Amino acid sequence: MQDFRALGKRLSNWGRWDRDGVRDERGTTNLLTPERVAAAAGLVREGKIFDLGIPFGRGGPQPGGGRINPMILVSETGADQDFPGAFHYADDYVFMPLQSASQWDGLAHVFYDDQLYNGFPASAVSPHGTSANSIDKQAKGIAGRGVLVDVARHRGVEWLEAGEVVTPEELDAAMAAQGVALQGGDILLVRTGWRRKFLVENDAAAFMAGEPGLGLDCCEWLHEHEVAAVCSDNWAIEVLPGEIPGEQLPVHMVLIRDMGMTLGEILDFEELSADCAEDGRYEFFLTAPPIKFSRALGSPINPLAIK
Amino acid sequence: MQDFRALGKRLSNWGRWDRDGVRDERGTTNLLTPERVAAAAGLVREGKIFDLGIPFGRGGPQPGGGRINPMILVSETGADQDFPGAFHYADDYVFMPLQSASQWDGLAHVFYDDQLYNGFPASAVSPHGTSANSIDKQAKGIAGRGVLVDVARHRGVEWLEAGEVVTPEELDAAMAAQGVALQGGDILLVRTGWRRKFLVENDAAAFMAGEPGLGLDCCEWLHEHEVAAVCSDNWAIEVLPGEIPGEQLPVHMVLIRDMGMTLGEILDFEELSADCAEDGRYEFFLTAPPIKFSRALGSPINPLAIK
Amino acid sequence: MQDFRALGKRLSNWGRWDRDGVRDERGTTNLLTPERVAAAAGLVREGKIFDLGIPFGRGGPQPGGGRINPMILVSETGADQDFPGAFHYADDYVFMPLQSASQWDGLAHVFYDDQLYNGFPASAVSPHGTSANSIDKQAKGIAGRGVLVDVARHRGVEWLEAGEVVTPEELDAAMAAQGVALQGGDILLVRTGWRRKFLVENDAAAFMAGEPGLGLDCCEWLHEHEVAAVCSDNWAIEVLPGEIPGEQLPVHMVLIRDMGMTLGEILDFEELSADCAEDGRYEFFLTAPPIKFSRALGSPINPLAIK
Amino acid sequence: MQDFRALGKRLSNWGRWDRDGVRDERGTTNLLTPERVAAAAGLVREGKIFDLGIPFGRGGPQPGGGRINPMILVSETGADQDFPGAFHYADDYVFMPLQSASQWDGLAHVFYDDQLYNGFPASAVSPHGTSANSIDKQAKGIAGRGVLVDVARHRGVEWLEAGEVVTPEELDAAMAAQGVALQGGDILLVRTGWRRKFLVENDAAAFMAGEPGLGLDCCEWLHEHEVAAVCSDNWAIEVLPGEIPGEQLPVHMVLIRDMGMTLGEILDFEELSADCAEDGRYEFFLTAPPIKFSRALGSPINPLAIK
Repeated sequence: MQDFRALGKRLSNWGRWDRDGVRDERGTTNLLTPERVAAAAGLVREGKIFDLGIPFGRGGPQPGGGRINPMILVSETGADQDFPGAFHYADDYVFMPLQSASQWDGLAHVFYDDQLYNGFPASAVSPHGTSANSIDKQAKGIAGRGVLVDVARHRGVEWLEAGEVVTPEELDAAMAAQGVALQGGDILLVRTGWRRKFLVENDAAAFMAGEPGLGLDCCEWLHEHEVAAVCSDNWAIEVLPGEIPGEQLPVHMVLIRDMGMTLGEILDFEELSADCAEDGRYEFFLTAPPIKFSRALGSPINPLAIK
Repeated sequence: MQDFRALGKRLSNWGRWDRDGVRDERGTTNLLTPERVAAAAGLVREGKIFDLGIPFGRGGPQPGGGRINPMILVSETGADQDFPGAFHYADDYVFMPLQSASQWDGLAHVFYDDQLYNGFPASAVSPHGTSANSIDKQAKGIAGRGVLVDVARHRGVEWLEAGEVVTPEELDAAMAAQGVALQGGDILLVRTGWRRKFLVENDAAAFMAGEPGLGLDCCEWLHEHEVAAVCSDNWAIEVLPGEIPGEQLPVHMVLIRDMGMTLGEILDFEELSADCAEDGRYEFFLTAPPIKFSRALGSPINPLAIK
Repeated sequence: MQDFRALGKRLSNWGRWDRDGVRDERGTTNLLTPERVAAAAGLVREGKIFDLGIPFGRGGPQPGGGRINPMILVSETGADQDFPGAFHYADDYVFMPLQSASQWDGLAHVFYDDQLYNGFPASAVSPHGTSANSIDKQAKGIAGRGVLVDVARHRGVEWLEAGEVVTPEELDAAMAAQGVALQGGDILLVRTGWRRKFLVENDAAAFMAGEPGLGLDCCEWLHEHEVAAVCSDNWAIEVLPGEIPGEQLPVHMVLIRDMGMTLGEILDFEELSADCAEDGRYEFFLTAPPIKFSRALGSPINPLAIK
Repeated sequence: MQDFRALGKRLSNWGRWDRDGVRDERGTTNLLTPERVAAAAGLVREGKIFDLGIPFGRGGPQPGGGRINPMILVSETGADQDFPGAFHYADDYVFMPLQSASQWDGLAHVFYDDQLYNGFPASAVSPHGTSANSIDKQAKGIAGRGVLVDVARHRGVEWLEAGEVVTPEELDAAMAAQGVALQGGDILLVRTGWRRKFLVENDAAAFMAGEPGLGLDCCEWLHEHEVAAVCSDNWAIEVLPGEIPGEQLPVHMVLIRDMGMTLGEILDFEELSADCAEDGRYEFFLTAPPIKFSRALGSPINPLAIK
């Protein structure tokens, strides 16, 4: 069984992007260099846009507990207003966990051994939010070349089952079959079919009770390929139950805390997957700006894949 | 004094994008055709990204009342958790009006004479949200060619004052001076300097007490130029107090309800403005996907301008 | 099968407490006259207090959906404050449905045929709250003689099962066995054991999937006995599924809308029940002030029974 | 200038109510013995009820910042429901700081030198709430003999001004003039007129910018008189600015942290004050149960004074 601490240490990006005495708080999105962004925009040919966010509302995949589905409440319908003139307006509020639906996990979201990514102390996170690695540090967006690895389609299944591990070898094989290769600074989208499962079953408890996903070995593979961010249609990127007895979410710990990799979760690749299968193009321009929540640990998103 | 109803009727886009018996709910973003999106992506040359959203948090521009600033509350700091193994996580919640900071106004946000854009009845908006023209209808994003008209810079002022009207002639003159021309399907960004005023003064009440902005005559101009969406660094696009005594927000009423134009408000063009002035390029690729809030009237955003 | 409209009409209290052209908004709590309150205070002999509210927090009986359990979020722990001097403070927020745990149903909470209690139009309820029959109309409290009818104990069961009807005859028999009789203006507490079921099973879905409770015939009985308010340890007072096919919550409709009776729900009578069984005294002074939420439809409560 | 630490140590109730190895978490409400509760109920003669809570809603006294006024949002108006049969219902949510309007400060609300009341460590308060001295420990209510000291009326002013200190001598003099004396276990209500100021001026910022209130010397006086809880119509009981330069809220620190006294704030004594002046009776039965928010630091209340 792998020692996640040793792995994390080997793959660590701590200090890698510090500049002039300023400690980095962005992690692997530093790999999204202007050159790469400019090159990725060249992937837009037809102008087709795919929105990868899921609907935000009560019908979402949170079964309750630590997180709930977004509660949208209408404060004004316009029906009983008495302004001068003809004007009426409608307005609404939301109460939600920032990570309840399609989301970026920020780099302060997960830690171990009292340290966040890049050595910031865990005490940086307080009831006032985080003073280090907050999601708004990614505000200039996460935009670049996106690559979809459609594992479910490659296996020929609707979805992988909970506990099924996706390995580096399988990622390589799927991409080879798809005819696409990773370049440095890519944003990787891994489709396990877990979103489709939810769409078919509409069962939040089942969606959250484990999932198929990346195994620990993928951390090194992501590191070697200089992946800038990784996204999935499940809720935690990684396989659950995990591979190390007695440890929770070890892939999170290595990717976020050691490598400084921002994770995109609970996305919907269904339409994109069908289109990629049809035109054989699994690469596209991807923009996924977080909302600039101050000192926050994550952000809702609606990434756009543009071909 | 202009009759906004007559103006709205003349500029109406009702029915224009209905197809096969399906009534349109997107309005002028229909002008963001795939061809135009693809062409706009060609504007990305250096890969420079400008994030146009403002920070979301308690220090925002809402003085309280109908809307408040986003309240972010930390549900987990990680400090007092007792999971098996090394794992700790931090998490947060937000309570906010969907239109409290940088935002898209959806097409059900404003109405008059009991009808929403495209003739949907005002009763489509209920405490359960809106059944027509909800913001998630724009989910495939609002992406295309962005053009900044820097009115404040063109006037040589830090900001225009509340009540100062921006006219079509001034927009034309500023764009001519900037060396940029509108094309069909553009997303127009109008900089009044009102955001700078807030950054300088940090006075939410002053920010909300009126504003400089577009006058009613701009509606026709936006219509003729086939503008797909209009954004500003103020909070309502239009000049306040408005031009018609006894009417509230007439530009909103015509643009949203009659023309079906989605409005982007409370954006920050400061960094972009400086860059455009420096390189003389006032056009760029813009992506501004709303979060897919179901049946919602608006959405927080963090638009990216990419050059 | 009973016609609930005819029943409601027969038992209607509309107009009964109107005074000097002012329409009543309090309903049967008008029966809590000063004389009765004063007499009820005389029931306090030993000074023993029983709190009848349940805990408010995530572990509550709401399975999610229209209502959720109260979400308490700590905004300040005191740990990372930097005030002058020694002072530290902790603070918290709550987001909750006003009727998610122990609660009064206000008189605008339920209606039919477009009218609220006392003939106010249903349109009095808007996104701005209710302009008639709001819970704060009960602000001077609901205090008086409380009487517990311990149906579950009388039947010799831990709890009645969902769908089991409590009839007037059973209420009479239980009270006779308990040696207590109703007087005008009493607050009646009906124990079905449904709270105990939740404490034993800790299953919110099971708690909400039907319940034992009052049948329609009890409405007339409550009317004749001049009961001021009725409370229960279940979540809707009345039996569910109900007695009229195709109608939802007919007892609510008659009690709240026609009779103007405020209902107390999701209370905990376990400790009180044991004490009453021991000392044979099923009467006490009861105070159950609603929190004065403006224009609200209900209020959280923690009633005190004092013997 | 007084040393609040020395004062706190002298008046400390730590350990006083520990029993059988169980550390007390209720503090001075332990003085509300059954005998005293029973005797206090005897003060109810006419059955007149005074509700001392203020309205909860957007028009409250919070100017924004750390705390906001309660936001009530209507989730159902009943207008667009489609249940079988005639049933319609209306429902609402609230988002609020637990201490934004009429409230009990719990015994974990304030601390210094890393210790809460009765020596619990400050670390008992976490993002999950407090594991010691939570407000629900007061759930059996706070009921007993209430005594109003009407300082504003005694001075013959509408309200005292911010910064004006109420001394033990003044409390004694006012009570002597009122013809009432304290007994052990009383709940003391101090009227400064600060609530009236808000009702007259409707200025939340002015209400929060300092206040008249108890001086530090009152702590010893409250201790000697065995007061069970102290309430006021201002927002912090104590005079602000305070009497010790460089220290914040020293009366809070001594009363809550050292003496274990629960504080009732932002109450409305206007109607009660008038009645007491008229009938000359400044004593009554008081019930003020907190809502049982789990692990919470305070609770909204609507205390009832019953004469």
